[in-house]
Amino acid sequence: MTSRLLLLGAGRSASSLIQYLLRHAPAENWFMTVADANAAHLAPVLAAHSEYARAVPFDLENETLLEQLVTEADVVISMLPAMLHPVVARVCVRHGRHLATASYVSPEIAALHDDARAAGVTLLMECGLDPGLDHMSAMRAIEHIRARGGRLTSFKSYCGGLLAPAAEGDNPWKYKFTWNPRNVVLAGQSTAKYLENGHPRFIPYQQLFARTETLTLPGYGDFEGYANRDSLSYRAPYGLDEIPTILRGTLRRPGYCAAWHALVRLGLTDDSVNLGNSETMTWAELVEAYLPISLAPSLDLSVRLAHYLGLDPTGAEMGRINWLGLFSARPVGHANATPAQLLERLLSEKWQLQPHDHDLIVMQHLFEFELGGASHRLTSSLTVVGDDATHTGMAKTVGLPLGMAVRRLARGEVQQRGVLLPVDAALYEPILNELAADYGIVFLEEEKAA
Amino acid sequence: MTSRLLLLGAGRSASSLIQYLLRHAPAENWFMTVADANAAHLAPVLAAHSEYARAVPFDLENETLLEQLVTEADVVISMLPAMLHPVVARVCVRHGRHLATASYVSPEIAALHDDARAAGVTLLMECGLDPGLDHMSAMRAIEHIRARGGRLTSFKSYCGGLLAPAAEGDNPWKYKFTWNPRNVVLAGQSTAKYLENGHPRFIPYQQLFARTETLTLPGYGDFEGYANRDSLSYRAPYGLDEIPTILRGTLRRPGYCAAWHALVRLGLTDDSVNLGNSETMTWAELVEAYLPISLAPSLDLSVRLAHYLGLDPTGAEMGRINWLGLFSARPVGHANATPAQLLERLLSEKWQLQPHDHDLIVMQHLFEFELGGASHRLTSSLTVVGDDATHTGMAKTVGLPLGMAVRRLARGEVQQRGVLLPVDAALYEPILNELAADYGIVFLEEEKAA
Repeated sequence: MTSRLLLLGAGRSASSLIQYLLRHAPAENWFMTVADANAAHLAPVLAAHSEYARAVPFDLENETLLEQLVTEADVVISMLPAMLHPVVARVCVRHGRHLATASYVSPEIAALHDDARAAGVTLLMECGLDPGLDHMSAMRAIEHIRARGGRLTSFKSYCGGLLAPAAEGDNPWKYKFTWNPRNVVLAGQSTAKYLENGHPRFIPYQQLFARTETLTLPGYGDFEGYANRDSLSYRAPYGLDEIPTILRGTLRRPGYCAAWHALVRLGLTDDSVNLGNSETMTWAELVEAYLPISLAPSLDLSVRLAHYLGLDPTGAEMGRINWLGLFSARPVGHANATPAQLLERLLSEKWQLQPHDHDLIVMQHLFEFELGGASHRLTSSLTVVGDDATHTGMAKTVGLPLGMAVRRLARGEVQQRGVLLPVDAALYEPILNELAADYGIVFLEEEKAA
Repeated sequence: MTSRLLLLGAGRSASSLIQYLLRHAPAENWFMTVADANAAHLAPVLAAHSEYARAVPFDLENETLLEQLVTEADVVISMLPAMLHPVVARVCVRHGRHLATASYVSPEIAALHDDARAAGVTLLMECGLDPGLDHMSAMRAIEHIRARGGRLTSFKSYCGGLLAPAAEGDNPWKYKFTWNPRNVVLAGQSTAKYLENGHPRFIPYQQLFARTETLTLPGYGDFEGYANRDSLSYRAPYGLDEIPTILRGTLRRPGYCAAWHALVRLGLTDDSVNLGNSETMTWAELVEAYLPISLAPSLDLSVRLAHYLGLDPTGAEMGRINWLGLFSARPVGHANATPAQLLERLLSEKWQLQPHDHDLIVMQHLFEFELGGASHRLTSSLTVVGDDATHTGMAKTVGLPLGMAVRRLARGEVQQRGVLLPVDAALYEPILNELAADYGIVFLEEEKAA
């Protein structure tokens, strides 16, 4: 019997997901409807697969169309922006259709749990990279440790979407955008919470990028990690309510965080105020406007900024800031914007992934556990390089786990109903095995006595 | 003919306003209805004035009651929280009643301008201290300078609600709450914007309390001022669109800002995250949770905090922080709160105005102007000491200008309709004169060549 899949949203990050679904459509007997605001651009991709797939124009404002598409599907996959998922999920629950996404369970989605169960519907969330592959790989390692009789004392987990070394080029930040630029600019604007040796730990935004840890990924050298907003929320779904140390973080190449910390301190990441600036204000004028007027005006702007922030004028942080063009006569290009909007506009150009660039996904879990009276450390590391600027490491590691989760769902292999995360072995084992066997996406584990 | 006044909200800050209205009720032929959620506490105040005043219980959720009260009044005065003013203002416009408040014109209030004009209604906003008396006194000085042919080149204006020196006692912050504590804790959490010598200036929150100016008030010594959020918005209502320098700021006693800056950097003013803390967590444990774990644990918590923030462990900032009890074993007393909520809870006790305390209102305008080929400076300063803990300087300087504005409105002396600020001489001159003659609230002016 044919399974009818509905994919909502087919932007760039859906490339590998669509490829995966097309690849398996014949054998799995799928017919796929791809609904996107910009359906026309999908034509070339789907032309060769018209037996299995069609594209339809889509506008989420048209709830009648959404209802119709959902009722015509067996499984709905949403790659729409996360804030749109509650609308889609409610329609799925109303019409008894399963849903899979790569997005976090929001409070609105969590609130649908009982209704979804009552309707016999599975809302399978957090099946991409982070969240997604992080849950699957961490839970596999945790279950292995538990099966051996080990008691977990520490779990730290980091993930980052970065660049393959060749693509880093002369960019001293060693970073380009492979995901939502706005989220990168606004990252960490709260207080990070985690646990260390049984004690709560808090890091406010104004200290976050100054308090990093160094990690090493096999074959790729050193990275630095900064703490994510809420590490504590991972305890319950992972069954780690008693663990003394838990931390989730984001990886960057060394030096990124110190330079970003300088931008935070300068004030360029604030998104709460429109500056009232003109479009023709230059970057140098903008930076000047943040400096106290009393500093010696004869010195170079970059030197005065370095003094103001207590940085070495010829040091690495200032080198990164200078590379961005913050001292240039170039217009900021956007009138009455927030500092964060102006910075995002600049970075979107400076940190744009080029067609020849390969991105790099890095993930590392660090476990400590006690077993047989001894302390052990287990490190589980993943590195995935993008194929090209379309099938990026990001698109692959977000799209493939999601596609594989949909495959389980369409086959009827997922029995649980309601809101689910991929933390059960029955779901994540076949996905991790398929990622390894068909795509070489494998976590390298290294264990030693602590 | 009797004028019927309706006062909505009669909290502590309305004490001097009510006293003023009762004082003038007989001569002005007013009958006043005071509507408050807690009407019972007004009985003793109003008992001796039952000819002129009555108290009615009030609940803003009851819009029928609001409509009824408004229709029974000629002039409505609102001392409700500012966010409630749009509801009140819309009812006033609908029923053709004038409104006076001491609150800022919000976008919702501004949007009522045309409707209010069409209905022949005056919405007289910003008639308290700041906003209010600041507008009136600054406009009087600006008009005097203009009348002499002067051209304004700089306008800086500061205001603060502080303590009379005797009430400062051994409190090293020299500050207690005479206004909404929450607003004090969250002050400045954006980017401050002002103009200096024709150039825009921006100060982000994380630098705000480190970038202060020193001011001197006659008879009261030195104060320090930090910039308010948006100084630019004062240009249009004051007719100062071309002025090269404009800055609005808030005054504190010297040392307050440096110590507050330390609390900001530590992270205790963040209101965006619930910490997940227990009610019994101690202040020492909370501060500990913000420190990196690697610092020498054998040192005193206060010394480790000082090192972390780069402060002298025996310096004034640490002295102020220690005085608050941040290193004590006392419980924070509120589970799963934001840092800002915990800090507000602590400060509400430490900075509580005592019955014998007198508060101090300070305001200073600093003008620079060119006249006859020379540069001049004019400083206009106000200091008002509270009578007692009820008729505080704050209650007097908020309530008296508002009461006087209502007197003008009730007499029919305000001709303009729509949303108004007290920036016209016809309105502010009699108010400033009455404040001086009847209450000794006088701005001291000092002018010299620059």
